[in-house]
Amino acid sequence: MLLIAIFLFLGHVSSANSAFTLRSPNPMRFMTEPPKLTSGYVYETRYIDVLLDHFSFADDRTFKLKFLISTEFHEPHGPVLFYTGNEGPVETFAENTGFMWEHAEELKAALVFAEHRFYGSSLPFGNETFKDVEHFGYMTAEQALADFVSVIEYLQLTNENFTDAPVIALGGSYGGILAAWFRNKYPNLVAGAIAASAPVWMFPNMSSCGEFNRIATDTFVASGSEECRQNIATVWNSIQEVSKGPAGLQFLYRTFILCKPLVSVQPLIDYLVDFVGLLAMVNYPYEASFVGEFPAEPVKYFCRNLNAFSSKDQPVDVVLRTASAVRSVTNYTKQQKCIMIDDDLPGLGVKAWDIQTCMEMTIPMCATGVKDMFPPMDWDAEVFSEACFKKYGVRPRMGWSDKQFWGKRLQTASKIVFSNGDLDPWSGFGVQRQEDVPQCHVIRIPNGAHHLDLRASNSLDPADVIDARKQELDFIKTWIREWKAT
Amino acid sequence: MLLIAIFLFLGHVSSANSAFTLRSPNPMRFMTEPPKLTSGYVYETRYIDVLLDHFSFADDRTFKLKFLISTEFHEPHGPVLFYTGNEGPVETFAENTGFMWEHAEELKAALVFAEHRFYGSSLPFGNETFKDVEHFGYMTAEQALADFVSVIEYLQLTNENFTDAPVIALGGSYGGILAAWFRNKYPNLVAGAIAASAPVWMFPNMSSCGEFNRIATDTFVASGSEECRQNIATVWNSIQEVSKGPAGLQFLYRTFILCKPLVSVQPLIDYLVDFVGLLAMVNYPYEASFVGEFPAEPVKYFCRNLNAFSSKDQPVDVVLRTASAVRSVTNYTKQQKCIMIDDDLPGLGVKAWDIQTCMEMTIPMCATGVKDMFPPMDWDAEVFSEACFKKYGVRPRMGWSDKQFWGKRLQTASKIVFSNGDLDPWSGFGVQRQEDVPQCHVIRIPNGAHHLDLRASNSLDPADVIDARKQELDFIKTWIREWKAT
Repeated sequence: MLLIAIFLFLGHVSSANSAFTLRSPNPMRFMTEPPKLTSGYVYETRYIDVLLDHFSFADDRTFKLKFLISTEFHEPHGPVLFYTGNEGPVETFAENTGFMWEHAEELKAALVFAEHRFYGSSLPFGNETFKDVEHFGYMTAEQALADFVSVIEYLQLTNENFTDAPVIALGGSYGGILAAWFRNKYPNLVAGAIAASAPVWMFPNMSSCGEFNRIATDTFVASGSEECRQNIATVWNSIQEVSKGPAGLQFLYRTFILCKPLVSVQPLIDYLVDFVGLLAMVNYPYEASFVGEFPAEPVKYFCRNLNAFSSKDQPVDVVLRTASAVRSVTNYTKQQKCIMIDDDLPGLGVKAWDIQTCMEMTIPMCATGVKDMFPPMDWDAEVFSEACFKKYGVRPRMGWSDKQFWGKRLQTASKIVFSNGDLDPWSGFGVQRQEDVPQCHVIRIPNGAHHLDLRASNSLDPADVIDARKQELDFIKTWIREWKAT
Repeated sequence: MLLIAIFLFLGHVSSANSAFTLRSPNPMRFMTEPPKLTSGYVYETRYIDVLLDHFSFADDRTFKLKFLISTEFHEPHGPVLFYTGNEGPVETFAENTGFMWEHAEELKAALVFAEHRFYGSSLPFGNETFKDVEHFGYMTAEQALADFVSVIEYLQLTNENFTDAPVIALGGSYGGILAAWFRNKYPNLVAGAIAASAPVWMFPNMSSCGEFNRIATDTFVASGSEECRQNIATVWNSIQEVSKGPAGLQFLYRTFILCKPLVSVQPLIDYLVDFVGLLAMVNYPYEASFVGEFPAEPVKYFCRNLNAFSSKDQPVDVVLRTASAVRSVTNYTKQQKCIMIDDDLPGLGVKAWDIQTCMEMTIPMCATGVKDMFPPMDWDAEVFSEACFKKYGVRPRMGWSDKQFWGKRLQTASKIVFSNGDLDPWSGFGVQRQEDVPQCHVIRIPNGAHHLDLRASNSLDPADVIDARKQELDFIKTWIREWKAT
């Protein structure tokens, strides 16, 4: 399987019948190979020294931060479209943010894609980077934003074409959160921001923890069918039932064609919960290659293959058909030998995001099995904190992002587009109402999945995403004009 | 002498005929004793644990931060007037910010005075606090602001009366800078800010380095006389001349009644440059006790005593009369045995601010001796940096505050009053034009010295400061109303 989900930071947690969540959301779950560079976009790769800790003078260590740059269409002092990199190698975002590439010429803009510290090649301590909290503890959003400041500062100091250049921040998902925060915290540097599918309110005490799973369920009804939803709802108990039989785990291992035998049933259920959520996120109208090889409208595709069974089937039949439907997607291009469901997947980013959720980026997630089609999952802050401490020797600061990054009080936030696709489960943690952000712009994309608007144009794009992109471009032009006027 | 200048952070640098500045501005220069608590204001003193480094998880050390609180007039969920402490023990600010005490009852407000880390009793490492950069390196504005966040968070978590309470930040001088930055960086917590005499543009490449000395000179002409200005201008060379004679330093030591003999003439000149600037800053219309015992209108008072000599006098006469005029102020209450001019004055705050100027708070200062009455002083960033490194093992990050705290791009700053007195030399680094801060409020106080508006009412207050306070109160009421409406 080549299902790269770095762009999406999928985050499911724990699962069937467990009282509490011990697993943290992990965006890198489906990334098993480095990003493919197939777009043909041309950019330079550069590295600059940035401070490990921008906010004290006690430590003057630096490390190499990577950024990509294209100045092909940049006119002197013209705008900079600045991608605020998220939890993965920055090339992936350069490859998959066609929106920036398509408008560089018209805007006479430079394109910059800055890597997020602790991802890709921007590892402060090389092989030791994730050794312990004294190393990975600098992996915070405040520091990452200050890295972005350093990139801008570097460009301004070394190339006079960047003097006074209006910077437009763009990002999707966690990168979208960072784009919004970048504008909020540094409006002196950032003229405006496109925060695409940014779940800025995914943090503790900001939203209902069940929103993700509720919306994923709605998407399966809307793009699949009510029958599909009901079928998925029966999967969890069926798998549990089968696992209890003699050689049950062995049967599941063989049926799903897993890469490693199961020691318990839970990892399989966790994987499938994540997988189903992922399908809703990437429910694009065309074959998508940026998260591996997905069929067009993967929800519909999956449901079609799953609906061959009815809820009256025996558990073993449900399992057989579920496995077949899952494989129909994961092995869509016939390249997949087996399914890897381990938490310890290759790729440092897997671990990096997991650690971030144990520091600043905690995402409460739950399911009821009533409003949604998932196995019931509770979420408990203390249990989560304890699990983090056990795993990494660090505890989350759960109230901090609310204070540091303004939480729900966004009245003063300005010149940010908050765009969300209604199909995208993450939209439940996004800004959806204009009145919450009077100086920003809320764009809803009824037929959009996870930040579809940032992707390159496609003949199968729904009208609403075409319109969203047009609005975003207009806002960017306005922000540039207003920046130059002051 | 009991001349406490913590409130003012006086900052002169180097001096007569020196090519470059090696000395950094030091606000604590005139503070030789702890603050006197004479106001009779009643408050509780509390301590909370705050993180040494709020922006990484690599270090979970905490220390005790002090704050003072009065809830006598606080109604549940009523406003909090929050003093953002500056470079000294916070009691001094509680004692000398009568504006807050006078309006607590009308506003039904709680009063909070938060101490700035590394000052007063908020020393992270006790006696080791200023040992080396690994200790004092955490003395940054970002961390201090995050401490203030922690105080608010603590109040909200421990007392439900503080839930959703609108917080108004207030501060004078460096504290005023912090009040403005607190609003800018945390508008989710701070409903508005009074930044009194806040030289937010004192940093490298933001203002002309000669502004302070130019305005001080103007104040001496306006409140003293042109003759006074000319007389002061002759002092520096006269002292130099005298120092070169046999036993010249001994003569100066005896004439000024210094506490310690002079090894060179420069420290005396440095002291007098600072002293003259201080007189302009504290040129209040009444006897001021918060910076020791000052006469009313100290500039006029000093000039009257100085003008007894004319520029035709011999250097030795100039020195004698200057010493007499200086002593007439410093020994105004006849309590002073001798003048302490050492840089190594008692009091940790002296050193603390000196170190801050070598990290984030570098203040370029210069004089021409033409536009102003001071000995010519150049300012050179590299020389300053080198001197810092030699002295403390740390170098300033001179471009950082411009990036981190928005520099001159304050278009998005909102609900901040920038008040400045025209007599105050620091006003040259303040926000003086409404068009620079369209969403804030500029208040100029023609007859005001350094943040006179924050002081308690006095029958000798000029009409313009009375009006400024009235405007500030109205803005605070509006901000509270608007906060509650959202």
